[in-house]
Amino acid sequence: MDTSKIFQHGTLGLLVPGLYDGTITAGELLAHGDTGIGTLDGLNGEVIILNGHAYQAREDGQVREIAATETLPFASVHFEAPQQATTVSQLDMADFQRQVATDFQLMNVFAAVRVDGMFKRVKTRVAPHQTKPYKTLVAATATQPEFEGTAVEGTIIGYFAPHLFQGATVGGFHLHFLSTDHQLGGHLLDFEIDQAKLSVQKFADFQVHLPIDNADYLAEKFDNDTIDSAINKAER
Amino acid sequence: MDTSKIFQHGTLGLLVPGLYDGTITAGELLAHGDTGIGTLDGLNGEVIILNGHAYQAREDGQVREIAATETLPFASVHFEAPQQATTVSQLDMADFQRQVATDFQLMNVFAAVRVDGMFKRVKTRVAPHQTKPYKTLVAATATQPEFEGTAVEGTIIGYFAPHLFQGATVGGFHLHFLSTDHQLGGHLLDFEIDQAKLSVQKFADFQVHLPIDNADYLAEKFDNDTIDSAINKAER
Repeated sequence: MDTSKIFQHGTLGLLVPGLYDGTITAGELLAHGDTGIGTLDGLNGEVIILNGHAYQAREDGQVREIAATETLPFASVHFEAPQQATTVSQLDMADFQRQVATDFQLMNVFAAVRVDGMFKRVKTRVAPHQTKPYKTLVAATATQPEFEGTAVEGTIIGYFAPHLFQGATVGGFHLHFLSTDHQLGGHLLDFEIDQAKLSVQKFADFQVHLPIDNADYLAEKFDNDTIDSAINKAER
Repeated sequence: MDTSKIFQHGTLGLLVPGLYDGTITAGELLAHGDTGIGTLDGLNGEVIILNGHAYQAREDGQVREIAATETLPFASVHFEAPQQATTVSQLDMADFQRQVATDFQLMNVFAAVRVDGMFKRVKTRVAPHQTKPYKTLVAATATQPEFEGTAVEGTIIGYFAPHLFQGATVGGFHLHFLSTDHQLGGHLLDFEIDQAKLSVQKFADFQVHLPIDNADYLAEKFDNDTIDSAINKAER
């Protein structure tokens, strides 16, 4: 069990033109990590993986556990073993990101960030399930349901990646949320921490696993500038 | 021994502002692969790794074997197990790259490319050894020795990477050369194959290992556009 690396299936870039077909099973993915984030086949919602269990936050607001046979086009996982933990309080999303990046000197380092505790407010969005022919990521996420909660107990899980890796993944922070009662989840748009425990795990290694047997992936003509601007629009 | 992945230490991006200090030993590197390319501490020449032996093509034109204790700021290696082999003849560098990328449908796939045989002509360059304070990659390689040979027997070894990974590595082809008699080596600028065997090994996985204990690396403010244009200038 290698706790020094992030295993990522697919790239954020492949979602941009609309390659939403699942190309790894949840079962295979969980062999590479017990904690992480992703999305399901058909861009079907937001995936949150905690303690070896993968959950889907759906566009109807429901949260359910994912079966081992379901597939994902994109996901990042790691085996949890944080090197550092501290308490955080009274922080909104922008201040949280600034403070964590600075305090842990993340700029050029891959790291997993986990926050467990009480949140004054949480705002998420959930990608809506797409059917073929797939729209681009920007078109698919132009309108998507948002969910809000106040005085919520829950967990933020996600990653910081060096901006050099924008396109392969999201440069900077990419954070998902799951409430303890499983009533609220999704991709984080905003939050304010009341009181929580922050755990940070830095990684020396980032491993990208590509769907090299997928004909659509092999044939896609990707454009780096298009991918960069789409990620900035759809994933922040 | 995992033959399905490329192990890369460092990023091409970190060379761009001049982070040339070696951060992995050749011994450690060879634990991750028996074949590959790189550069030595201080941007000291071009590294060619074949059959578990690492060689340095120096700026004075000499080739020597690297000791296990020497260090590298950047290198890519893999364990050799090509899935496909064919013969190639009468091909210059541009036609070779076009043909290999097309025939093996490499566009979005990481692959190692090896060519063993006779070359009508070979032209290489070798990065000159830098001392501190280090210049940027573009400045350091603005003038560098070039070497040419005709009717040379030797080996091309290098990689194709999807353009999405430009910055993390070189997007497209990155090829080094070593003659069988070790009289000619370096980063390939041009060549013409007479008759040779081409071996291609595709990888599902690309693993980047970062020097996260190196203070200069942690503090460097990288800029993606600067890195992109510097790679296009210095590594093609």
